[in-house]
Amino acid sequence: MSDHIVSAFTDELDKLAADILRMGGIVETMILDASAAVDGNDLDLAREVVARDPEVDQLEAEIERQIVSLIARRQPMAHDLRAVFAALKVVGELERIGDLSKNIAKRTQRLDKIVGPAMRRGIVRMASPVSRQLNMVLDAYATGNAAAAKAVWEGDDDIDQHYNSLFREMLTYMIEDPRTIGAGAHMLFIAKNLERIGDHCTNIAEFVYFQATGDNLLSTERPKTPQIDG
Amino acid sequence: MSDHIVSAFTDELDKLAADILRMGGIVETMILDASAAVDGNDLDLAREVVARDPEVDQLEAEIERQIVSLIARRQPMAHDLRAVFAALKVVGELERIGDLSKNIAKRTQRLDKIVGPAMRRGIVRMASPVSRQLNMVLDAYATGNAAAAKAVWEGDDDIDQHYNSLFREMLTYMIEDPRTIGAGAHMLFIAKNLERIGDHCTNIAEFVYFQATGDNLLSTERPKTPQIDG
Repeated sequence: MSDHIVSAFTDELDKLAADILRMGGIVETMILDASAAVDGNDLDLAREVVARDPEVDQLEAEIERQIVSLIARRQPMAHDLRAVFAALKVVGELERIGDLSKNIAKRTQRLDKIVGPAMRRGIVRMASPVSRQLNMVLDAYATGNAAAAKAVWEGDDDIDQHYNSLFREMLTYMIEDPRTIGAGAHMLFIAKNLERIGDHCTNIAEFVYFQATGDNLLSTERPKTPQIDG
Repeated sequence: MSDHIVSAFTDELDKLAADILRMGGIVETMILDASAAVDGNDLDLAREVVARDPEVDQLEAEIERQIVSLIARRQPMAHDLRAVFAALKVVGELERIGDLSKNIAKRTQRLDKIVGPAMRRGIVRMASPVSRQLNMVLDAYATGNAAAAKAVWEGDDDIDQHYNSLFREMLTYMIEDPRTIGAGAHMLFIAKNLERIGDHCTNIAEFVYFQATGDNLLSTERPKTPQIDG
């Protein structure tokens, strides 16, 4: 294969990675804005987050088309094929993170005044390490850093512990004041969505690790707190 | 291209579809068994469902490898490319349905005796139309029937109505007897998982329709009940 063709292929891979990182940036903002909307009962901000989701879906569709066309034209092998495959999986994970953030934003409208500031703060406290996980795993993807990906993967245990304690805390609010049960149920789903966003970051970490090393993280031991609900 | 090569390609596509249908069959059983486990408080059956999930994950990985290799070797165009792309998306949706069913099964262990038969029956009542949606959309996939896919897509509204009414019903149990709040929260998540399985069937319907027609179902109007929680 001539240098010209090889370099054109590398350019295409770089463009792909750049698009994915852009998509990741939008999605990261969605997590932070959605939880800020919960915290401040900010319905305008919640609507903005919801309005950003179609852009994420469109980016996913565009990037997928790019990937399929790249596989068909370039017939990548070995490391290149791993890179293209990882891109395909990462973009799917990011779309789901966007979707979960949108769902958090939508639920903001259902919380009403009965959900006090203490319960709302808990969401922001959890969203902060979750969005940091996404930020770190996107860095690991950008630099192909397997060790950094592994660190994110191991960090998910903190998120799970956070979720367990938030889940218990919310149940106590609901038991103390049954008028909060309806809104409290939405708060439980919001916390669960954050926990699932953490899982998607872990999935991304696995694909980054696989792309960089050809090995599977799942064969390693991971510190794991038993989850309160599954 | 010689007839020999064309027919080998068709054989590969047929094998791909057969594998996907087999995966769909396993996943359909998981939905039904998981909700039967909830209904009968059958922890052995719940464990069986959980144990089946790794097989589904492995099938997904195998089918994905098959698809990527097929794109690289055959460089499919037009309708064939749509078929391969639809296969890639459908397999991802089925994996998520398996995962959600596993999560229902795991939560069975958290329900304890306090969750009475009336609340449990509600889950089976909802699981039945949900698994029927999956069954119908797999048929539509097998036969490439766009009209059948569209019918599944339209049928999701029934599932959403079902979910809304189950959600309200469960909240009333929790309000009446605050001791059920902890287990009731798990029941809400179980119902939500079924509702999300319905959404994944709708996604599959969109890919089947796209594969058959090249058109996007999303451009059509769909009957849509506003959802209670999003």
